[in-house]
Amino acid sequence: MDADKKITTLAEIGEFALIDRLTKDVNIQNKSTIKGVGDDAAILDYKDKQLVITTDMLMEGIHFSLVYAPLKHLGYKAAVVNFSDVYAMNAHPKQLIVSLAISSKFSVEAVEEIYEGIKLACNKYQADLIGGDTTSSLTGLALSLTAIGETKKGQTAFRNTAKKNDLICVSGNLGAAYVGLQLLEREKKVFAESNVQPDFSGYEYILERQLKPEARKDVVEALQKDGIKPTSMIDVSDGLSSELFHICTQSGVGCRIYSEKIPIHTQTAKMADEFNMDPLVCALNGGEDYELLFTVPVKQFEKIDKVEDVSIIGHITDKTEGLKLQTASDHLVDLKAQGWTSFADHQEENADSK
Amino acid sequence: MDADKKITTLAEIGEFALIDRLTKDVNIQNKSTIKGVGDDAAILDYKDKQLVITTDMLMEGIHFSLVYAPLKHLGYKAAVVNFSDVYAMNAHPKQLIVSLAISSKFSVEAVEEIYEGIKLACNKYQADLIGGDTTSSLTGLALSLTAIGETKKGQTAFRNTAKKNDLICVSGNLGAAYVGLQLLEREKKVFAESNVQPDFSGYEYILERQLKPEARKDVVEALQKDGIKPTSMIDVSDGLSSELFHICTQSGVGCRIYSEKIPIHTQTAKMADEFNMDPLVCALNGGEDYELLFTVPVKQFEKIDKVEDVSIIGHITDKTEGLKLQTASDHLVDLKAQGWTSFADHQEENADSK
Repeated sequence: MDADKKITTLAEIGEFALIDRLTKDVNIQNKSTIKGVGDDAAILDYKDKQLVITTDMLMEGIHFSLVYAPLKHLGYKAAVVNFSDVYAMNAHPKQLIVSLAISSKFSVEAVEEIYEGIKLACNKYQADLIGGDTTSSLTGLALSLTAIGETKKGQTAFRNTAKKNDLICVSGNLGAAYVGLQLLEREKKVFAESNVQPDFSGYEYILERQLKPEARKDVVEALQKDGIKPTSMIDVSDGLSSELFHICTQSGVGCRIYSEKIPIHTQTAKMADEFNMDPLVCALNGGEDYELLFTVPVKQFEKIDKVEDVSIIGHITDKTEGLKLQTASDHLVDLKAQGWTSFADHQEENADSK
Repeated sequence: MDADKKITTLAEIGEFALIDRLTKDVNIQNKSTIKGVGDDAAILDYKDKQLVITTDMLMEGIHFSLVYAPLKHLGYKAAVVNFSDVYAMNAHPKQLIVSLAISSKFSVEAVEEIYEGIKLACNKYQADLIGGDTTSSLTGLALSLTAIGETKKGQTAFRNTAKKNDLICVSGNLGAAYVGLQLLEREKKVFAESNVQPDFSGYEYILERQLKPEARKDVVEALQKDGIKPTSMIDVSDGLSSELFHICTQSGVGCRIYSEKIPIHTQTAKMADEFNMDPLVCALNGGEDYELLFTVPVKQFEKIDKVEDVSIIGHITDKTEGLKLQTASDHLVDLKAQGWTSFADHQEENADSK
C-alpha cells in the first residue's frame, strides 16, 4: 500500500460497513446467480446444468507469507486456485464465496486490497462474488474460498476414469512455482540478515508463477473447441507425481511418463541449477503449478498434438506395471506419491525430496 | 477424548490417509448430490429447483475456546450454524463442505472428533458431506463450512421484503446462548484461579444452547405445513436487535416490539440475574441463539398464533417511526443495531451493552 493512503482500523468501521465497502462494486455477470451478497445465503439456479463445487483454505505461514506475498496477489491467487479446481472438472467457474479471518491489526484498506485481487480474478474468469463471511482472527490471516462452476451432464472430467493406453497430457510447464518460492524464501532470508534489497531480474516468470498463478481456462476452452473430452483430469496443485498417483489409484491403472517430455521453463531450470536441485524433481514434486494434467484416448493423438501449450508426457498402463518414470538414459524409476506435506514442515519436506 | 484412546499424529498419517479416514463412512442421502468427496470438486444437480448457499468461518479464540468447547460439539455447532442460515432462507440443507485448518499438535483422533460432530449434524439435518479442504495452521484451529440448500422458486424468504403492518415473530427463546457463554467464561476463570471444578447443575439448558445449538428445521417445516410463507426471515446469530436492524434497513421499514413479548427461558433470566444483567438486554444483544426471526402478513395472525414455539413480538411500522422497543412501563426506547463486534473485543463489547 502507498504510505499516504488513508488507514482505517477494522474496529472503527465495524462489520456491516466493512461488508458494504468490500462488496459495493460487485456486479453479477452470470444468469445462474439469482441473488448474491446481502442475505443469509446466496441463491443460484442452474436449471438443466449440473454444478461443481470446490473449496480451498489458505493459512498465513503455511500457504503464504505476508512478507513477500502482496495482499492483492494473495487474493488473486486464492480465487485462481479454486477456479483451477473447477476447470479440472472440465467445468467453468460461475460463482465465488469468500471467507476471511483477519487480526484486528489489519486495516480496512488491507482487507480491500485482498478483495481487489479476488475481484480482479472474478472479472478475468467471469465468476460472480456472491457472499462469504468476514471475521476476526487472534493470530494469522485465514482465507477460505468456495467456487461453483457449471458443467453439462456427461461433459465433466473425473479423476477415476483414465483408461489403459490413454495419452497423458499436461498444460504449460511444471516446477516454476516451486523454484519461485525457493527464490522468495532465499531473498527473505538475505534481507533479514543483511537488509540487502532483493534483485529478481531475470526471474520474473517464476516469481509470477508463484505469486500470481493463472488457471487454465484457455486449455479447457481449446479442448472443448476441438471436441476433445479428457478421459480424466486433475489440476497440478501438489506436484505431477502426486496428481498422477491420484489419477492412477482412483482409476485402477498404472502409468509411464518420460523425463525428457516433461515441460520445464528455462527460468525454472536455471533457478533449480542455482539451488543445486534437479529441475525434474522440482517439476515432479514442486506443486502449485495449477496446470492441467489429463488423459485422452490414444486415437485423439493428432488432435491433441495440435493444441497449443499442451505436452504429451506419457501414457496410461496396466495397473500391474505401477507408476513409472522413464529417464533420458532409459532407466525406469518408480514415481513416488509425494502427497501433500502440510502437516510436516512444508518447505523442508519439499526440499527433502531433492 | 478418553485417555486410553489411540493417539495418531497428523504428520505420521498424511493428507490422503487422513481424508480417507474422515470420509470413509460418509453416505450420500440426497438426489441432488451427484458426486461428493474424492475429486477436484463435488457435483450437484438441482434440476428445476434453486439452491441457496451460505458460509461461516469459526476461529479459535474468537468463536470458541477449546478449553470448554468439546471438539464433537464444536463440529456439530459449526454445521448447525450454517444449516440455520439455510433455514433462514426458508430452504432445506442438502450438502455441506468442510474446510479445517489445524495445528500439527492436533491428533488425528481429535480431528475425527470434530468430524464426528459434523457428521452427526449432517445426519440429523439430512445433509450430505460432499467435500472440503484439510490443512494445517501455525496457530489456532480454523473451521470454514459452506452449506447448500434447496428451495422452490418463489418460496425463498429474504431479508428485504418485510411489509408495513406485518407481524414480527421469533421462534424459541432468546439470550440463552449468551448467558451460557458468560457462565462458561466465569467457570473457566474460577478453574484457572482455584482449580475448583465447575458445577453447572441447574444450568444445563443454557449450556446446551451455547455448546450444542440446533437449527429450527421444525419451525420451517411447521410454517410450510401450515401454508405460511414468511414475508421476510433471518436467523438470530448476532442478537435480536441486530437482526431486526437488518430486516428493517433492507426492507425500508420500521418496527415496534414489546419487551414483555420477548421469549426468555427461566434459566436465562436466573443466570442473567446472577450476573446482574438485564435478561432483556441479553435477549436483544446476546447472539448465537440461532432462532428464526420472521415476519408474516397480519391477516395470518390466527394461523401463526397456533404454531408451536413461535412468539409474536411486535409488528412492522413505517420507516419514519424507526426501530422501537416498547417497555413494560409503556416507554418507547430506540433499538440499537448492536451489530457484530468481532473486531473489537467480543466479550467486552457484549458486556458493554448491558
